[in-house]
Amino acid sequence: MKVAILGPRGTYAEIAARLRFGSSAEIAPYSMITDVAEAVARGEVDAGIIPVESLREGSVGEALDALAWTDIKVQAEIVVPISHCLIGVPGAKLENITQVLSHPQALAQCRDFLRKNLPKAELIEMTSTARAAEQVGKLKQPYMAAIGPRALADTYGLEVLRGNIQASEMNITRFLCLAKEDSRPTGHDKTSIVFYTAEDRPGILYEILREFAVRNINLTKIESRPSKRVLGDYLFFIDFEGHREDARVREALEALQTKVAMLKVVGSYPKRF
Amino acid sequence: MKVAILGPRGTYAEIAARLRFGSSAEIAPYSMITDVAEAVARGEVDAGIIPVESLREGSVGEALDALAWTDIKVQAEIVVPISHCLIGVPGAKLENITQVLSHPQALAQCRDFLRKNLPKAELIEMTSTARAAEQVGKLKQPYMAAIGPRALADTYGLEVLRGNIQASEMNITRFLCLAKEDSRPTGHDKTSIVFYTAEDRPGILYEILREFAVRNINLTKIESRPSKRVLGDYLFFIDFEGHREDARVREALEALQTKVAMLKVVGSYPKRF
Repeated sequence: MKVAILGPRGTYAEIAARLRFGSSAEIAPYSMITDVAEAVARGEVDAGIIPVESLREGSVGEALDALAWTDIKVQAEIVVPISHCLIGVPGAKLENITQVLSHPQALAQCRDFLRKNLPKAELIEMTSTARAAEQVGKLKQPYMAAIGPRALADTYGLEVLRGNIQASEMNITRFLCLAKEDSRPTGHDKTSIVFYTAEDRPGILYEILREFAVRNINLTKIESRPSKRVLGDYLFFIDFEGHREDARVREALEALQTKVAMLKVVGSYPKRF
Repeated sequence: MKVAILGPRGTYAEIAARLRFGSSAEIAPYSMITDVAEAVARGEVDAGIIPVESLREGSVGEALDALAWTDIKVQAEIVVPISHCLIGVPGAKLENITQVLSHPQALAQCRDFLRKNLPKAELIEMTSTARAAEQVGKLKQPYMAAIGPRALADTYGLEVLRGNIQASEMNITRFLCLAKEDSRPTGHDKTSIVFYTAEDRPGILYEILREFAVRNINLTKIESRPSKRVLGDYLFFIDFEGHREDARVREALEALQTKVAMLKVVGSYPKRF
């Protein structure tokens, strides 16, 4: 079993991969979400793990693009609780920290802690929490700290200066497992679709949502996103409860097909939250 | 006139501020979108400029949060065409570049160029395009390059190695001008709202959109976003055509008020795209 993840190793994406595939899976880290999706589409790996949404920061734009434009299916969602730590060289003191390195989303997730405890620290964005810890471990300066999961402290010979510094007690990132096929019905499923309407007129989205409402299908998420052609021209991403093989979902999707210019059923998979 | 922008100086936010307020406005750079919004709310500045959406990358999560939770109004939208350049030390050659520094969105916007021309270069995320150019100007290494607007080359004594390297010919970022008051009706306006439904049941969003559809009000954007309480519990952000003082908009908002747990009219302002 070979699994592509948004790398590098040691970040939350690897935790998500281990939750789904266990410790024996071979992990292949890629530097961009698009690369993970394309590795799945080309069959180079059996599955790919990408972050799609976090409680604090909302959707990951690059992930939505990958769902729309890559030949993959969503096979599962994996919910990973995020717990960030401030990590520094052994013996470093919180009051001496003047530089904090981390991934932009982790910095944002710890914004309240940083503004309260380190209001003057320079925030340095890195491509991942692991890269940030690696840099602090390499430079070994007592004024530098990284933000990321606790496991990074061990990996890079560092120490946890403060634990659980993210804004919300309840902080969760939703990862998707991409594969060539989606999942079989379990009776407790979700389906993700993306569509594009050729018309831009009042009521078109309303008419589309009608197909779900009249069939008592609960939407769990809706998002419009620039189609990259003209600003104001949007793709729609909708998640709803039910499997694409359920009779009422099948009917809704058939009705939708006649109203939109493009419809992609990205996949049905067990609902995890 | 004092205008807060998402800093540092020299990035696209300053270009947007100049487009709206001209060259005489005093510019106050802040390091986070939240800080810009709060400076406006506290009355420390007359207006604030924040990026809210880009053609390539979609919405800026922190900006949506600021709209929902800060005591500000949207007074205008400003559309700025984005043209990124690869900028290096004078005499640097494209084929020798092994490190590319920029803001994560700029790196993402130039993803196709980077994958084709510099597939092995290390991508280093910085808090802004200006910070990236500053760093390249300081270290003066021929293997380093920054991505950002052309003006940065002059500011930091650098040279444009390649121009217009962003993915799409048509690349635009939408900025919002925040202030204490929104704008008067012009006959060609847009309104932004954010709301939260207490109920999570099939059809609730459909019922809400009905209030717009039956009054022939065109939606230009819809987005659900985690409310930060529980994953799957969402705030909705909707932009639509019309001013909050238009009779049919006023009626729709009154009807909405009875269906949602929280409704904030973020502002009405002239439609720019």
